[in-house]
This record gives sequence, C-alpha cells and structure tokens, in this order.
Amino acid sequence: MSNHRTKFDRGIYDSPAISQLKALVFDVFGTVVDWRSSLITELSAFGQRRCIHADWPLLVDEWRAAYYPSMDRVRKGEQTWATLDALHRQSLEGLVASLGIGGLRPEDLDELTDAWRRLRPWPDVSEGMQRLATRYILGPLSNANVALMVRLRKFAGLPWDFVFGADLWQHYKPDPETYQGACRLLNLRPNEVMLVAAHNYDLRAARIEGLCTAFIARVTEYGPRQTKDLEAEESWTVVASDLRDLASLLST
Amino acid sequence: MSNHRTKFDRGIYDSPAISQLKALVFDVFGTVVDWRSSLITELSAFGQRRCIHADWPLLVDEWRAAYYPSMDRVRKGEQTWATLDALHRQSLEGLVASLGIGGLRPEDLDELTDAWRRLRPWPDVSEGMQRLATRYILGPLSNANVALMVRLRKFAGLPWDFVFGADLWQHYKPDPETYQGACRLLNLRPNEVMLVAAHNYDLRAARIEGLCTAFIARVTEYGPRQTKDLEAEESWTVVASDLRDLASLLST
Repeated sequence: MSNHRTKFDRGIYDSPAISQLKALVFDVFGTVVDWRSSLITELSAFGQRRCIHADWPLLVDEWRAAYYPSMDRVRKGEQTWATLDALHRQSLEGLVASLGIGGLRPEDLDELTDAWRRLRPWPDVSEGMQRLATRYILGPLSNANVALMVRLRKFAGLPWDFVFGADLWQHYKPDPETYQGACRLLNLRPNEVMLVAAHNYDLRAARIEGLCTAFIARVTEYGPRQTKDLEAEESWTVVASDLRDLASLLST
Repeated sequence: MSNHRTKFDRGIYDSPAISQLKALVFDVFGTVVDWRSSLITELSAFGQRRCIHADWPLLVDEWRAAYYPSMDRVRKGEQTWATLDALHRQSLEGLVASLGIGGLRPEDLDELTDAWRRLRPWPDVSEGMQRLATRYILGPLSNANVALMVRLRKFAGLPWDFVFGADLWQHYKPDPETYQGACRLLNLRPNEVMLVAAHNYDLRAARIEGLCTAFIARVTEYGPRQTKDLEAEESWTVVASDLRDLASLLST
C-alpha cells in the first residue's frame, strides 16, 4: 500500500448527486472574494492618505488570523453573540495596539472595518456566477452578518438570489445549525443544496449534514506562502479549478 | 371645517427624511407583482389543460381573501407557526372543497400553490427597481417565506440585494417585529429605511416603528371593483404613482 496521500483532481466524483441539485450556497471570504489583496490595497491607501506608516500586509494577515479564535470565543460561550462586523472591529482594536500603529481614532477603526464590505471577487467569479445562475438558485452561506454580506453583494455586483449570514441562526460555520438553517430557509432537502468552498473543513461539515460539496482551490488566498487548502482532501461531489470551471462541469 | 377627507396627491411630504435613506424594503404581493391576474392566468391554463371546469377568478379572489384570516390564526396563537406556502396550501384545500371543484389530487394542489412563485411584476417595476438600485439597497419585506420569495425573485428577475421573509422572525406584518427585524438585519436605523407599499395599513405600522414610508397606488390589484387603498390615506414620506415615478421623485 502506498503512503502517498490520494489526490483528488478536477472532476465530478458523484454524478447522480448532481442531477438532484437546485441551489448552490457559497462560502465567500476566500472562495468568492480575494479578501487579502483587497484589504491590503484599501489599508495601504488609507495609510498613505493619512500619512500613517505601518506594515499593512502584516496587519491584514494578523486580522484574518484573529478570525477563527474570535468566532470560537462566541461558539464556546466565552462571549455573547457578536456579528462578524463586531468581531472584526474588536480584533482590529487589539491589533492596532499590539502592532503599535498610532494616530487612529475610533472612527478610523470603523472606516477600516468597513473595508470588509468592499472586497473584490476573483477574476473568474462574475462569469462563473452568471452561468451558474441560469440553472441554480445562488447565494452566500457566510460567517459574515447579513448587513455586511448585503453591502458586499452590492459592491461586487453578484447575481445572488438570497443572502444568508451567521446572524440568522446566531451560529458560525462549521456549526451544523448553519447548513441546516440554509436548507430550511430554502425549503430544500440537504441533497438538493451544494456548498461551494475553498476550504476543506467547511465542506467536511456540510457533507456531514448531507449537502453536496464543491471544492475550488484558491492557492493564493493567504498570500504566496499559503500552506493549507491547496487541494481537495476528499472526493467532494465536484472538484473544480474555479467558478468558470464549476459552471462548465455542471454544464451551465 | 370641511368634512371632505384630505387627499394626498403625488409628491414628497418629508424632504429632509429622504436625505437619510439607505435602503428600500418592498411589500411584494400587490405592490411589486400583480398576483391576481397572474394567478387567474395560471389557474385557468391548468383547468383547460386538465379539463377541470371552475370559476377560477372566483377561486383566486377567495384564496387571497383567506390570507388575512389565516395569518391572524397564527398571530393569535390558534395555530402554531406556519409559512405562507403552508397557509396557501391549507386555504386552497378548503376552498376547492367549498367551491365544489372536483378532480384535484394532492399533487395538483401543490402545483397550484406553486403558482405564487410565478407572479408577474407590474409593467413599471423592472425599470423602477433598476433605477432605485443605483442608489439604494433594495429587497422585499414580505409576509411570504424566504423560499417562496427567492423563487419569485428568480422568476421575475428583480435586482434585490437581500430577501427577507416572515419565517426569519416568525411574525407576519403588521407585527412590529417584522419592521424592526429588517432594520436590525440591515444594521440600519429605522429612519434610514423606507417601506414601499400599496397598502395604507402596512405603511401605518412601519411609520409607528420609525421607518420612512412610500405609497404606490395599485388600483386594480383586487380587480376592477377594488374599493380600498385607492389612494394615500396619510401624508406618507412619499406618494408616487408607480415605481418609475418613485425613482424620479427620489432623483434616481
């Protein structure tokens, strides 16, 4: 027996499942939008405008690194329910202090937090989503709150039929309540819904709830030195190289 | 003192309020879509296809007439929470029996209930919505459940940024929880949100919660003999003749 990890190349791994599909729900940060380069651009421009010198790419990476621990505090009940907007704001305040970035007023922190509402989609997203929308009901299943996601949808011009966010169920992915909640609101069975994500952990949790799964590799989501989610780790329902490719695999 | 009822013609009745606006939330049945003629067309075509003779326009009118009493039973706790899809299905079953329409199987009743997902927008809606979308966040605040509204959005191609439905708060308009819930999910103050509706009772309830209000007359919503909501009954924030006109009044 070989000790090489099995590799799951581009393709459909469960054709019969595809014929049942009615809706695609999308992870957003990383899968649909390039949060890292968008935030680096926004924050660097802010620094230049305000003559505030800082290692903005480092701040962005640390900001995102604070994401999972901040949600975990809510999940474990160490903090009462807080939206992702609120968690972003709270993490930023801590990071600005620990990185010694001076000259920022509370309203500046609000403005920087709002940058999460202006993230650019990856280049394949516009065409891919438009093609997928011709056959399927589409929308986000994100850990963002609805208010954040609504602004992002407007900014990025995404052809979504609905907008779901973590505040609808007061649970963060990968909690089962999120995947179950999406199916319930759409009045669809789990096998009629497919989660599209660039993160294996998210797909793993969706599969446990009975959803179909599509993996899209975003190998520079975390920058040039990314080490995780470089490839599909399981035989997901579909493995595609991007959303255009997913649209082709699903014949749309 | 005259005993003539004051008439509120087309116009803006509170200009300063307009400058605060960020989002428009729409009543849907009657305000955005012409449910009556759409349903009459769908049900008559079904009858012809299946050779089932019935007074389909009467059935449609009685079906809609059952709407308020059915929601009231939920509101008063005489019935546990049920979605509008479920209430429609339940009313239809009773009406088919009381009107003596024979030959319908349970799956036919499901199919007829689904006709609420394929309602045509009024002729001004497409252009009006597109123009309003250039400045405002748009979406429905309907008594429909999310699943119904998502299908209707897809069918009618409406440029909505979000889809809210009564199942998000398990309350039907005009309960205050619905207007408050929409503002909370959008993370906006009530005075930043305007309800657009063809029904004075809905606007009255929204105004009590602090929302801005726009009245659109739909004088044939209930057919040629409509007697209510023929005109604005209060000085709503805006009174417009249709959505194109609303877009013009709001300079979009």
